[in-house]
Amino acid sequence: MENGPNKWGFQGKQELNAAAAITVRGFLNMLMGNINKDDSRPIIPLGHGDPSHFPSFRTTPAAVDAIVDAVGSGKYNCYAPTVGILPARRAIADYLNRDLPYKLLADDVYLTIGCTQAIEIVSAVLSRPGANILLPRPGFPYYEACAASNHLEVRHFDLLPEKGWEVDLDAIETLADENTVAMVIINPGNPCGNVFGYDHLKKVAETARKLGILVIADEAYDNIAFGSTQYVPMRVFGPIVPVLTLGSISKRWIVPGWRLGWLVTSDPNGILRKSGVIDSIIGFLDISADPATFIQAAVPQIIENTKDDFFSKIICILRETADLCYNRIKEIPCITCPKKPEGSMFVMVKLNLSMLDDINDDMEFCLKLAKEESVIILPGIAVGLKNWLRITFAIESSSLEEGLARVKAFCQRHATKQ
Amino acid sequence: MENGPNKWGFQGKQELNAAAAITVRGFLNMLMGNINKDDSRPIIPLGHGDPSHFPSFRTTPAAVDAIVDAVGSGKYNCYAPTVGILPARRAIADYLNRDLPYKLLADDVYLTIGCTQAIEIVSAVLSRPGANILLPRPGFPYYEACAASNHLEVRHFDLLPEKGWEVDLDAIETLADENTVAMVIINPGNPCGNVFGYDHLKKVAETARKLGILVIADEAYDNIAFGSTQYVPMRVFGPIVPVLTLGSISKRWIVPGWRLGWLVTSDPNGILRKSGVIDSIIGFLDISADPATFIQAAVPQIIENTKDDFFSKIICILRETADLCYNRIKEIPCITCPKKPEGSMFVMVKLNLSMLDDINDDMEFCLKLAKEESVIILPGIAVGLKNWLRITFAIESSSLEEGLARVKAFCQRHATKQ
Repeated sequence: MENGPNKWGFQGKQELNAAAAITVRGFLNMLMGNINKDDSRPIIPLGHGDPSHFPSFRTTPAAVDAIVDAVGSGKYNCYAPTVGILPARRAIADYLNRDLPYKLLADDVYLTIGCTQAIEIVSAVLSRPGANILLPRPGFPYYEACAASNHLEVRHFDLLPEKGWEVDLDAIETLADENTVAMVIINPGNPCGNVFGYDHLKKVAETARKLGILVIADEAYDNIAFGSTQYVPMRVFGPIVPVLTLGSISKRWIVPGWRLGWLVTSDPNGILRKSGVIDSIIGFLDISADPATFIQAAVPQIIENTKDDFFSKIICILRETADLCYNRIKEIPCITCPKKPEGSMFVMVKLNLSMLDDINDDMEFCLKLAKEESVIILPGIAVGLKNWLRITFAIESSSLEEGLARVKAFCQRHATKQ
Repeated sequence: MENGPNKWGFQGKQELNAAAAITVRGFLNMLMGNINKDDSRPIIPLGHGDPSHFPSFRTTPAAVDAIVDAVGSGKYNCYAPTVGILPARRAIADYLNRDLPYKLLADDVYLTIGCTQAIEIVSAVLSRPGANILLPRPGFPYYEACAASNHLEVRHFDLLPEKGWEVDLDAIETLADENTVAMVIINPGNPCGNVFGYDHLKKVAETARKLGILVIADEAYDNIAFGSTQYVPMRVFGPIVPVLTLGSISKRWIVPGWRLGWLVTSDPNGILRKSGVIDSIIGFLDISADPATFIQAAVPQIIENTKDDFFSKIICILRETADLCYNRIKEIPCITCPKKPEGSMFVMVKLNLSMLDDINDDMEFCLKLAKEESVIILPGIAVGLKNWLRITFAIESSSLEEGLARVKAFCQRHATKQ
């Protein structure tokens, strides 16, 4: 081709290319790339947060029927209002009101593309020059990614394994200053599998109030609790401190690919409104992508028609696989679990590297495990805790059994010779 | 409540609150707020780009069946790969290859949440300190919104009404400098309703090549052409200049609420790959929301099972309503149409304010029209052309007739007394 330019005036953006390296999906893709293709055994995925592929975790037909009805009606092929369609907002408000001493209105609910977009929104809305946000360690790395792209400084507080992964409340008070805007609480816990009790959450609320910061309550795993601690939504403490609840149908209904979530403002004292946060949420939604309209339209029917049986069956399965996981881990000397999981789909275990011969860190452990055993486990570094592992128990129990047997064999093979 | 903070440490973000004011939806919402609720006549919406509510514009049952099959299979409740699922990428590549002298591969196709997210992606990927982008005037204001949030400088080139809305190519050469990264071409034209001919698009490609910039081809209204000019996709000129095609099923299948679009790289010379643009697109997708997985999964069946009859029926209706619109506008003295629409769903008309007594600009025209006649028309200022109007003809012809009759009555009532 003649007359070409001396050079093209555009280029890619380095910052974006690095993004995958800090997401769970990025780590999992890297590990999948290390699988030995000559291994004829099935790959055992213990790194994911999406059990929808497994027969035991199939969603309820009521949810599928709701989608079929909504798309079949022909009424929801249109664009939706940027905040979401009213019947869905109202149904979600009612759903969340079940546990609540005050009442949410439809206007308090904003529909999002999964919980993921809700995280993007709060990060964008709360960022301002010099502002900082308090994030849990270990946590969910998408918060760090969104904070970085919004130039929001991150300060980490620890979840304490010796206290059942409770928040280090003293650290919160030390970390916070006049530029701190919010703290994030993930409950039930990803990655720790813990469930915070009422009293602890109340202390979190009181601490946040004292510091003048709001609480972002990531309840992606809402109601997925199967231990002795009862799940309490953070918004119960809305009269103490303003709460932004992030949730979705992804985990409880096991349809993460449907991309339907919400951001809910619990603000009985009107603090979020006065501070302009509500207007900014609406402003962000005005210029961002929406969940598919007919999926929004299906929400009321999904919530109304799902039987308690479905939820209790899933809870029952998770209780069993969590037990199995905990018990099998106890039989593997080089990993220890500080706290039996009571919620979500994960457990965090600590690697004892001194018991392993040729493995220097969690990443090397996971890479070699993928290669030698075709088992995928998320290295703790992906969630902020080096030399720990995040193991998923939301999988068929036979596969879980097989996967942990392979982990045991792997650890034995790599054990230090004494 | 005791022990409250002296002040709360968070606040909203002013920049976000203003966002609605620069989107088409923001303008339309403002106009809807001006409707007189005592007017018993139906509201006539001539401002939108979403005819899915009207019986004549109902999507094909084949598309609905594809969704029902995909969600019913239970195989697509899971998260999708960040770039989109392979069968959908392959089907879209094949669909776009129909008009193409070289061949796109599935890997050249990235699935997005409508065309909207594709605009977000290209804005983020191409931005760097000091960079600028060339946008058409009039155009689609979402480009300006995304450029602003990515700190990408905008330079406008005119579309020339006296030349059938062709690009002012001389202006392009004057505007571009070493920091120009790309130019945007919207074809078929939103808001002008024009269709660029082969020769003109080739000149655009040659100009871009000379300047070393890439072409962003917004083909949201692909194949929606019903006049004498044949629709030619910009990617035909991929061998001359790298092209990023932005498209979706929203307009051709009349399902904008399904939020399924694509970003396609046409790069037979490998320039986008070498420049790092491809890696950055993948990086952006790694940390952003995806279209619902089962909607992605429905794409192959939607494309394969949609009969030509469906498309030709819609084209036929649009040809008729465009004719009707053009003819009725000719009967209204204070507005003139420089070019009969040949594509998309819109036409731009010029307001002759000297013929109106008490109306000072396009915004006032549209606000008073909404209040007095319950007719919604988008003011030109929303698309960058003050004292013009964008009128939609994608509506039932009886409603279009009624709406334009009301516009005529409105203009007569406000005509200057001579």
